Amino acid sequence: MAGNSFGKLFKLTTFGESHGPAIGGIIDGCPAGLKLDFEAIQNELDRRKPGQSKIVTQRKEPDTVEFYSGIFEGVTTGTPIGFVIHNTNQKSKDYSHIKDVYRPSHADYTYDKKYGVRDYRGGGRSSARETASRVVAGAVAKQMLNNLKINAFTSSVGDIFLDKPYQDLDFSKIESNVIRCPDEASAEKMIAKVQEVKKQGDTIGGTITCVLQNVPVGLGEPVFDKLHAELGKAMLSINAVKGFEYGSGFCGARMKGSEHNDKFNKDGSTQTNLSGGVQGGISNGMDIYFRVAFKPVATTLQKQYTINSSGETVEMQGKGRHDPCVVPRAVPIVEAMAALVLADYMLLDKTSRL
Amino acid sequence: MAGNSFGKLFKLTTFGESHGPAIGGIIDGCPAGLKLDFEAIQNELDRRKPGQSKIVTQRKEPDTVEFYSGIFEGVTTGTPIGFVIHNTNQKSKDYSHIKDVYRPSHADYTYDKKYGVRDYRGGGRSSARETASRVVAGAVAKQMLNNLKINAFTSSVGDIFLDKPYQDLDFSKIESNVIRCPDEASAEKMIAKVQEVKKQGDTIGGTITCVLQNVPVGLGEPVFDKLHAELGKAMLSINAVKGFEYGSGFCGARMKGSEHNDKFNKDGSTQTNLSGGVQGGISNGMDIYFRVAFKPVATTLQKQYTINSSGETVEMQGKGRHDPCVVPRAVPIVEAMAALVLADYMLLDKTSRL
Amino acid sequence: MAGNSFGKLFKLTTFGESHGPAIGGIIDGCPAGLKLDFEAIQNELDRRKPGQSKIVTQRKEPDTVEFYSGIFEGVTTGTPIGFVIHNTNQKSKDYSHIKDVYRPSHADYTYDKKYGVRDYRGGGRSSARETASRVVAGAVAKQMLNNLKINAFTSSVGDIFLDKPYQDLDFSKIESNVIRCPDEASAEKMIAKVQEVKKQGDTIGGTITCVLQNVPVGLGEPVFDKLHAELGKAMLSINAVKGFEYGSGFCGARMKGSEHNDKFNKDGSTQTNLSGGVQGGISNGMDIYFRVAFKPVATTLQKQYTINSSGETVEMQGKGRHDPCVVPRAVPIVEAMAALVLADYMLLDKTSRL
Amino acid sequence: MAGNSFGKLFKLTTFGESHGPAIGGIIDGCPAGLKLDFEAIQNELDRRKPGQSKIVTQRKEPDTVEFYSGIFEGVTTGTPIGFVIHNTNQKSKDYSHIKDVYRPSHADYTYDKKYGVRDYRGGGRSSARETASRVVAGAVAKQMLNNLKINAFTSSVGDIFLDKPYQDLDFSKIESNVIRCPDEASAEKMIAKVQEVKKQGDTIGGTITCVLQNVPVGLGEPVFDKLHAELGKAMLSINAVKGFEYGSGFCGARMKGSEHNDKFNKDGSTQTNLSGGVQGGISNGMDIYFRVAFKPVATTLQKQYTINSSGETVEMQGKGRHDPCVVPRAVPIVEAMAALVLADYMLLDKTSRL
Repeated sequence: MAGNSFGKLFKLTTFGESHGPAIGGIIDGCPAGLKLDFEAIQNELDRRKPGQSKIVTQRKEPDTVEFYSGIFEGVTTGTPIGFVIHNTNQKSKDYSHIKDVYRPSHADYTYDKKYGVRDYRGGGRSSARETASRVVAGAVAKQMLNNLKINAFTSSVGDIFLDKPYQDLDFSKIESNVIRCPDEASAEKMIAKVQEVKKQGDTIGGTITCVLQNVPVGLGEPVFDKLHAELGKAMLSINAVKGFEYGSGFCGARMKGSEHNDKFNKDGSTQTNLSGGVQGGISNGMDIYFRVAFKPVATTLQKQYTINSSGETVEMQGKGRHDPCVVPRAVPIVEAMAALVLADYMLLDKTSRL
Repeated sequence: MAGNSFGKLFKLTTFGESHGPAIGGIIDGCPAGLKLDFEAIQNELDRRKPGQSKIVTQRKEPDTVEFYSGIFEGVTTGTPIGFVIHNTNQKSKDYSHIKDVYRPSHADYTYDKKYGVRDYRGGGRSSARETASRVVAGAVAKQMLNNLKINAFTSSVGDIFLDKPYQDLDFSKIESNVIRCPDEASAEKMIAKVQEVKKQGDTIGGTITCVLQNVPVGLGEPVFDKLHAELGKAMLSINAVKGFEYGSGFCGARMKGSEHNDKFNKDGSTQTNLSGGVQGGISNGMDIYFRVAFKPVATTLQKQYTINSSGETVEMQGKGRHDPCVVPRAVPIVEAMAALVLADYMLLDKTSRL
Repeated sequence: MAGNSFGKLFKLTTFGESHGPAIGGIIDGCPAGLKLDFEAIQNELDRRKPGQSKIVTQRKEPDTVEFYSGIFEGVTTGTPIGFVIHNTNQKSKDYSHIKDVYRPSHADYTYDKKYGVRDYRGGGRSSARETASRVVAGAVAKQMLNNLKINAFTSSVGDIFLDKPYQDLDFSKIESNVIRCPDEASAEKMIAKVQEVKKQGDTIGGTITCVLQNVPVGLGEPVFDKLHAELGKAMLSINAVKGFEYGSGFCGARMKGSEHNDKFNKDGSTQTNLSGGVQGGISNGMDIYFRVAFKPVATTLQKQYTINSSGETVEMQGKGRHDPCVVPRAVPIVEAMAALVLADYMLLDKTSRL
Repeated sequence: MAGNSFGKLFKLTTFGESHGPAIGGIIDGCPAGLKLDFEAIQNELDRRKPGQSKIVTQRKEPDTVEFYSGIFEGVTTGTPIGFVIHNTNQKSKDYSHIKDVYRPSHADYTYDKKYGVRDYRGGGRSSARETASRVVAGAVAKQMLNNLKINAFTSSVGDIFLDKPYQDLDFSKIESNVIRCPDEASAEKMIAKVQEVKKQGDTIGGTITCVLQNVPVGLGEPVFDKLHAELGKAMLSINAVKGFEYGSGFCGARMKGSEHNDKFNKDGSTQTNLSGGVQGGISNGMDIYFRVAFKPVATTLQKQYTINSSGETVEMQGKGRHDPCVVPRAVPIVEAMAALVLADYMLLDKTSRL
C-alpha cells in the first residue's frame, strides 16, 4: 500500500535511497523456467547509468546488479528474485548544503511534511536512482516477452521535435547516438540543444515515444485496469513525467468520430490505428504507441533563492554533476516500465478463460 | 485482479452490463461516522444521466440508486456499502443488429477475443453505463472530503478551446449551461459545435480540465503510487480517454528548468505552480490541476463498413440515441474518479507516521 | 483492505447486514466460459438456510439469489458477477431490546468500540447471515472445479464424536440426516444431543471435517500463502470458528518424525497421508483433509446478565428462533470456503510456469 | 500474488533460498518516526539461529542482518526498509546426495511438480531459513508496538505438556532454558525428551502457546480478515505447523453456550476469556492467546527409503546437523508473525473511522 510495489502477478517491489549502502528490489511472480541472459540485463542498466556520454551527468556509478535468489543454474525457479545494486559513489558530503533546504520543484518539502523526517542526501528515496531497480526488473520482463518488440526513443527536446511517424523510423538506430533518437538529423539538433542549455547551467524537458509491437490480442483488464491506464500509471510514476497520451492522444480530442474510427480489415486488424492498439482497455493486436512528457530537471547550476525548513530565505546553487536533460537516460526506464506492464498482463490474461 | 476494483483503502468494486437487470457496486473501506446526504448523491447521478439536454443522448434512464448496506440511520457504519441501480430501459432488441458485428473503434472485437464470449447488448461491460456506479461512489467520497473543492469542466470541444486560466473562471457557473463550461462565450461556441456534428450524424472529442483545491499537504505514496500517477490511471480508465497531463503537462516538456521551477514563498506555498500541486508524487498544498483528452464517440449515425465474427464485411449504421459528444456527461465522472483517489490517499496518509 | 474480500484472482467481495434490505456480493475473476447450473447454486443456499429442520433455527428466510451481471445466456463472460439476496424477513423490532445492550460473546461491544456506531439489528454485519453470500460464490467455484470432490460433514457435537476415519464413510449419506453426519449411528446421537441442549434453552459446539479429493498437484503459493494457511484463514473467518487443523494436526505435535513421515510410492503418491495432502504449502495430489472447531452459539434462551453501552448491568434473554447448534448449517459454508480457496489457487497456479 | 508477501499496510516481502548468497526482505509501510534498537533486532535473530544450544541443530550461521534503506540516523523514514542476511555457511555439497531425491514429508516433490525446476540445495525456498527474514521484520514490528506484550513459549514436546494456565507463568523465564518453557520442571522433562529422540536419530513435534497482552480494543477487519483468522494464517504459514486454535479452541467445540459465554464486567472487560480476546474478529481488550501445533522435523538421521525424480526407489539418510525438535527455535518466529499481524492491524484500524 505504501507505494513501493508495481504489478499484480509479475510484481516488483523496490527499496533504496540514492545515498544509502544499496538499492534493489524483489521480483515476485516471475514464472519458473525462464533462462536469463545476465549480460542483457546489465546492458539495460548501462543504458540508464550516469556518465555514459557528454550530455548526461558525469557522476560515475558502475551500477552492477547482484542477484541473490530465485534463479538456479541460470533459470528462474518461480521463487522471488531478490537483487541488489550497491551504491559505490555515496558522496554524502556533497549534499550537506541542502540538509535543511527545500530545493524548488524537488520533493524535499513534500517528503518532509508527509513523513516528518527525510533522508536529505541526494533526494533520498525521491531520487531517480530508484529507477535502476526498475530497469533490472524490466530487463527480466523483456526476456519473458521475447517475441514482443519494445522500443522507446527521444521524440522531442525542448522545441526540437522528431517530425516523422514512427513507422518511418529504424529502431535499430536508437542507440546510434547519445540522445537516443533514431533519426540522425533530429538527433543532432537535439544534442546541440542539450549542449546549449548545459552551457547556460540550465536544463530542458522533452518527450519519449514508445512503440510496443507483436503484442497479442487480449491483454488488459477492464474496467479500472485497462491496459493503457496501467501503462499511463507506469509512465507517470517515473520521475519528472508530466503527461501521457496514447494512440491519437490529445489530438484525438479535436477529431470527429467519422475521422477517428479505425476501419477493420477482414482479419481483425485495422486500416488506421488512431486507437493506439487498445480497444476498451484490451490490446487488439495492432501496435501500441504512446508518448510521455518529461519536465526539465529541477536542479540547475544557476543560483536560486529558496527556503529552508525554518521558513527562511536561503540562496542555493546546484553543484556539479547533474543531467541537463533527463530524456536520453529515461528511454530504458520507459521501456522497462512498459515491459513490466506487459509481463504482468500476459500472466493476468492466462486466467481470463476456463 | 480482474480489474473491476479501484482504490486501496477506500475501495470501489463495480459490476454490471448496460443491458442486464442492474449495475452497481460495493464501497469497502468508507470510514464509519460519515452522515450521508442522499440527495447530493442522486444529484451527481443526474448530472451523468442520459436525456438531460439536447446535446446528449436522448435515452431515458432514471438511474435511481438504492443502498443496501453499510449505512444505518443515515450514517456510514464502516461496513461495506452495497448499492444497485436497476436498468429500467433495457431495450435489448435495439442491439440485435450488432450481435455478430464488431463495431469499429468499440471493444466488441477485443472482448470477444479475450473472453471467447461476450454480452453484445449495448457494449455489455464495456459500455460507459458502468461509470454510473463510479459516480455514486465518487459522490460518497466527495462527502468524506467535505473541505476539498473538486471542480471539473469542459475545456475544449473539437477545435473550440476555453482560452482562460482556470483562476479566471467562476466554477459556480459550470452547471449553468449544458456543455458544462463555466465561460459562457466559450460554452455557446462549444454547444454550437456539438449541434453541428450532431446534424451530420457525427460525433466530436474534447477535453476536461479538473481542479482540486484545499488538498492537504502530504497525499501520495511514492514511488509507484504517486498521487498524479493514480489520478492519471483513474482518468485513463474512463471510457474514451486518450491522454492525461497535469501541471505544465506536455508544455512542460518544451521548457527550461530555470523557467519551470516553482519558487517557494516563506510559508511553503509557491509563487508559480507549474508543478500542478504535486512534488515527487506527494501533494504540496497548491492547487492540483490536470487535463483529460476524450476521443469522439465511436458510434456515429453514418453508414460504416465493418466486419462480423466470421470475418465478413458488413454494413452497419448506428441508431438513434447516442451522444454526439461525451464530454459534458463525463464531467461528473472525472470529478468522481478524482474524489475516489483523494479519499483513498487521505486514508493511506493516516498510516504514514507513527 | 477493510476485510470484505476473499481471494486473489477468484475474488469475492460481500456486503450486507442481517436486517438491511439485502445482502450480496461480487465475484470478480471468475473465468469466462463456465456454463452455470443455477439450480445447483440455489440448492447450496437451501442447505444453509434457516428453518430446514427441527434442530436449526425456525426463522423463515427463502434466500433466493438473483444474479445481476457477468452471465450471458447462462455462461460466465469474464466480467464481474454481481448477485443479491433480498432479506424478506427483516423483523427489526425483534432486536429493539438489544439496542444498547452488549450481548455476551457476541460482537456488539467490539463493533461499537471499533466503529463508534453499529447496526444493532440482529448483529448487523457480524451476523452469520453474511455467509449466505459465501455459499453463492462457493457454489460457482464448485462448478468451476467440476472434477474435484469437496465434502464436509459434522464430525462431532459436544462430546459425541464420529469415530471413524473418513475413508470408511460414504459421503453420499451426508445429506441423509439433519445433522449432516454420514454415519447414521453417530448422527442419531448427535441429533439427540442437540435436542437435549435445545430443550434446556442452551446451545452446543461441534466440529466439521472436510475432505478435498482429486486436487491436482501444485496448488499453493509459498511461503506466506501456503495452501493450508489460506484454507485455515478461510475457515477461521467463518463465524464461531475457534480452531483449524489439517492432516495430523494437533496429534502430529505428539509424534516422532519416524512415525510421521509419509513414505512415497513410486508414482509420487504416499503410503500414509499424515501430511494431509500438502507439502511445503503445495498440494501433492493426496486427499486434503482438515477439521474445524465451532464454539457453541452465544445466543441462548437462558436469562443472562450483561452490560449496556452506559456500563450498566442489564438482564437479557435470547428470544425465539436461534440455532441450538450451528454445525449442520455450517457444513455448506465450510465447503463453500474450501471451493473458493481451490478455485483461486487453480487460477494462481496457471501463472507459475512459463 | 505469488505468496512471498505478508500484511496489507505493514507489508513484508521476503526472498532467498537456504543456500543462495543471501536471504532478506523489504518492509514496506513501516510508519516514519520509529527509532530503532538494532541490538534488539539482532537479539531476536540470535534467538532463532542454529547452534545456540545442544538440543538444536549445530549448524553455525551468524545471521547478521544488514539494513540497506528506509532508516536515516537510526529512525525510520517511511520509505521501504530493505535488509539482507548473507548466507555464510552455504555448504552446497552437503546436499548433492538429494539432488534428484524427493525426501519424505519435505517439499521437494511438490516444488518440482509445481515449478518444473527446483533449487535442491537444502530445501531451497522451502527451507525454514526463510523465517529469519520474518524475525527481522517482526522485531521491527515489535518496536512499533512498544506497549504491547508478545510472549510465546513451548507448551508441549511430544507427550510432555506444560499443564498450567498461562496466567500462572512468569514470562520472564522463557529464555531461562533452552527449550523456552517458562516452567522449569516441565522444561527439564521436555529437554530430556528431545535428547532422547535425538539419540535415536529421530525428531519430535510440539506446541507453542502465544499470549498477546495490552492489545487495544478494535483491531480486526471483519468479515474475511478477522484478527484471529489472520493470526491463524500467519502461524500456519510457518514451516511444520499443522494446527491453530485460539481462546477455547477445539475444547470450545465440546462446550455449551451457557458455559462458554464470557460475562461482561461493567468496564467492558470480561470475567472469563474463553473468547481469547477476540469477538467477531475484533480484539476486545482482553488477552489474546492461541496455540500452534508443530509436526516433528521430517529430516531424521535414520535410514529411509524414498523415490527420486525418475520414480526409482532410493535409500537415503539425513546427515549431521538437523534440529531434533523445531519448537524452541520457532518461539521467536511465532512472536514475529504475531507482531507483524498486530502492527498491520494497528495501521488498518487507523482508517476505520472519520
